[in-house]
Amino acid sequence: MHKTKVAIVGMGTVGSGVARLLLDHGDRTARHAGRTLWLQKAVVRDLRKPRQCELPPGILTDRLEDVLEDEDIEVVALLMGGLEPARTVMLNLLDAGKDVVTANKALLAEHGAELFDRARLLGRCIAFEAAVAGGIPIISNISQCFSANQITSLQGILNGTSNFIVSQMDDQGWDYAHALKEAQRLGYAEEDPTMDVDGTDAAQKLAILAHLAFGARIRWQDIPRQGIDQLDIQDIHFAGELGYRIKLIAQARLGAHGLELSVSPTLIRSGRPLAEVRRNYNAINVVGDAVGDIFFHGQGAGQMPTASAVVADMIDTAVGRTPITFRTLELWSNRESPVSIRPDEDMPSRYYLRLTVADEPGSLAKITSVLGEHCISISSVIQHEPDPLSNSPQVQLVIMTHEAPEGAARRAVEKITQLPVVTGPSVRMRVMKDVKV
Amino acid sequence: MHKTKVAIVGMGTVGSGVARLLLDHGDRTARHAGRTLWLQKAVVRDLRKPRQCELPPGILTDRLEDVLEDEDIEVVALLMGGLEPARTVMLNLLDAGKDVVTANKALLAEHGAELFDRARLLGRCIAFEAAVAGGIPIISNISQCFSANQITSLQGILNGTSNFIVSQMDDQGWDYAHALKEAQRLGYAEEDPTMDVDGTDAAQKLAILAHLAFGARIRWQDIPRQGIDQLDIQDIHFAGELGYRIKLIAQARLGAHGLELSVSPTLIRSGRPLAEVRRNYNAINVVGDAVGDIFFHGQGAGQMPTASAVVADMIDTAVGRTPITFRTLELWSNRESPVSIRPDEDMPSRYYLRLTVADEPGSLAKITSVLGEHCISISSVIQHEPDPLSNSPQVQLVIMTHEAPEGAARRAVEKITQLPVVTGPSVRMRVMKDVKV
Repeated sequence: MHKTKVAIVGMGTVGSGVARLLLDHGDRTARHAGRTLWLQKAVVRDLRKPRQCELPPGILTDRLEDVLEDEDIEVVALLMGGLEPARTVMLNLLDAGKDVVTANKALLAEHGAELFDRARLLGRCIAFEAAVAGGIPIISNISQCFSANQITSLQGILNGTSNFIVSQMDDQGWDYAHALKEAQRLGYAEEDPTMDVDGTDAAQKLAILAHLAFGARIRWQDIPRQGIDQLDIQDIHFAGELGYRIKLIAQARLGAHGLELSVSPTLIRSGRPLAEVRRNYNAINVVGDAVGDIFFHGQGAGQMPTASAVVADMIDTAVGRTPITFRTLELWSNRESPVSIRPDEDMPSRYYLRLTVADEPGSLAKITSVLGEHCISISSVIQHEPDPLSNSPQVQLVIMTHEAPEGAARRAVEKITQLPVVTGPSVRMRVMKDVKV
Repeated sequence: MHKTKVAIVGMGTVGSGVARLLLDHGDRTARHAGRTLWLQKAVVRDLRKPRQCELPPGILTDRLEDVLEDEDIEVVALLMGGLEPARTVMLNLLDAGKDVVTANKALLAEHGAELFDRARLLGRCIAFEAAVAGGIPIISNISQCFSANQITSLQGILNGTSNFIVSQMDDQGWDYAHALKEAQRLGYAEEDPTMDVDGTDAAQKLAILAHLAFGARIRWQDIPRQGIDQLDIQDIHFAGELGYRIKLIAQARLGAHGLELSVSPTLIRSGRPLAEVRRNYNAINVVGDAVGDIFFHGQGAGQMPTASAVVADMIDTAVGRTPITFRTLELWSNRESPVSIRPDEDMPSRYYLRLTVADEPGSLAKITSVLGEHCISISSVIQHEPDPLSNSPQVQLVIMTHEAPEGAARRAVEKITQLPVVTGPSVRMRVMKDVKV
């Protein structure tokens, strides 16, 4: 049987998982690829560090040159995190004539144009299924399976750490700090969780998906984003009372006025598939004009789900499917962006507002008249009776609005927050448009 | 830009949808395929029949020879239903050097071996994404995206007609006959719905999926199957009371004793994704040993979702991805089946039993002792107080069992049904094993 020699650069969690699939399950790849993927080298920084995976002698090395200079190695899984030296290593691999598979979404979101241009110039290819949503094959589904469609919307839970935290807040009634600590204890959140909980990770993934689905040339930094790190347990309770759950939603929607992009904590009606995604799972709802809506749910991270996506890419590259896809799709090319990005300011959404209000006559009238001035109409209101045993002079007022442009909603809430009857900070979150099923 | 000339044979609902995507949205296929798919011919039986789709002059023909003899036509979408003349037409197309895309699952389930052998012999390929689950790209996901996995289980709602009927029974409280009539009125069920409601269609699709996922060489006729055509609204009510919904589930599970296959109405705990699939939607849960569980939900039939899958296959064939997949996977080959099929008799399951029982002392003891003799233990029981205003001498007894082999459960229920205290026919249905999420 034909052998394709492959290498791994970076033997952390995912790299070890990939090595395990290649070494322990060579029969599978042989069955699905019609050839063996033969692990020739695994490059690490420090040879003495203990490994999660035993390698046969002669494979482990700390010299990248052992891969670059070995002409028999055709496909390399680049599984280092961060931007450098990952970027330089990928350029070196491409220059050395290797096809590259990667799971590093930050690298693609930041340097995609440079890396893909280099690969095209050299007649090489880059595969990156594992970079978005781990085990869910969303890259391949969007770039191949839905190719007869104009995709009109993508809505996803793309960050498992955030979803774990908000699910635990919802299910257990914990506050953010407690849920984060639990996520860290279980290994779902890193010691410094910033990139996950502030929406950066989800925005980088959304930029990649928007690129594939809409051809949008967008910098992830330009996607309006908000994370879950400010989420208050009170809002989860109020959302529940209204029949909603809060999730960190990354969304791209093609409208008459351009592509609307956002990452934000969003209220979704309970029972809708995205609302019911629990723990560290990811999920994506894709709408295409021919196929209708397709929903995917699965593990978005973790050693073996991610390794599964990496090895599938290595197989696709070895048998020649990825090179075809890479050529035909012209990813991150200089081709003009076929869609314009709608300014955040104009994007319409329903909103959830929570205001801390003085418990005195006329408060509600003052607030609702500001909304009226900004042409924002109200869909529902909750204000509970003040606790008779408490002497607090303030109450929580929750307002659900009908659809309004982001800019108008922002300005209205700014103005409301300055009213003397509003005595604390205001909370504003998007509400996902509900669809008839 | 390069042109690939294509043809359609069969201009019914799906054929018209395919023509529409090719004619109205050529830009899309050009963008995703790097080439134009040029519709050269569309073959119909009767030229005078009114069409759902306007074709430019010169395309419509009633002569298959116009396709067979045109050497420029490379890819043909064969969109006729039934076994003949579809089988002969496919053989003719392959002989004429065409690659074929089809949505005809009955044809593949019945004649897959012959057709795939012929294609291999001739160096041609056959693509069939649209044959299972319509718009959900399950074929491509199983055959490519999960190729690093041993798939261990597939559970699906693969027949939209049946799901529409059971969902309406559940949501509206209608009986089977009423829900079927409504499904026919809305076009979700055919005038003769037999193949959909008796489990044939789901078994044919399951045979194809089991072939792809497990390499199982199985005739669809050998899959134990039961449809929803005997489903009683009482059982939907009792299932609801127990916290379950009933769905027609096609399932393939790889266990230590071989592959377990079945198509049957099955109780699934409410809130589980498969339990919440409504209307005519399809859904599939795939478990792989690396990727974990992945859930897909979407439209399983209908003009444009099916056409979306057909055109994606035409693109994949034109650009060369399908030929690679077809070569490497050796579908329906003579290669020995790597798994054995576990006899139905031994397959373990939990069961739901509904028995019509004389309202007299000792009934429950007699029934439960038969279950005990067959080593079947009871998980829960419902017997409502008889209606005090009714004079009926019988009551409904519902028993949920723990896991037991199919054979033992069948024999126990046969014996129970013969007891003098059991005064009507008995109902027995599988209960899906619940998993911790």
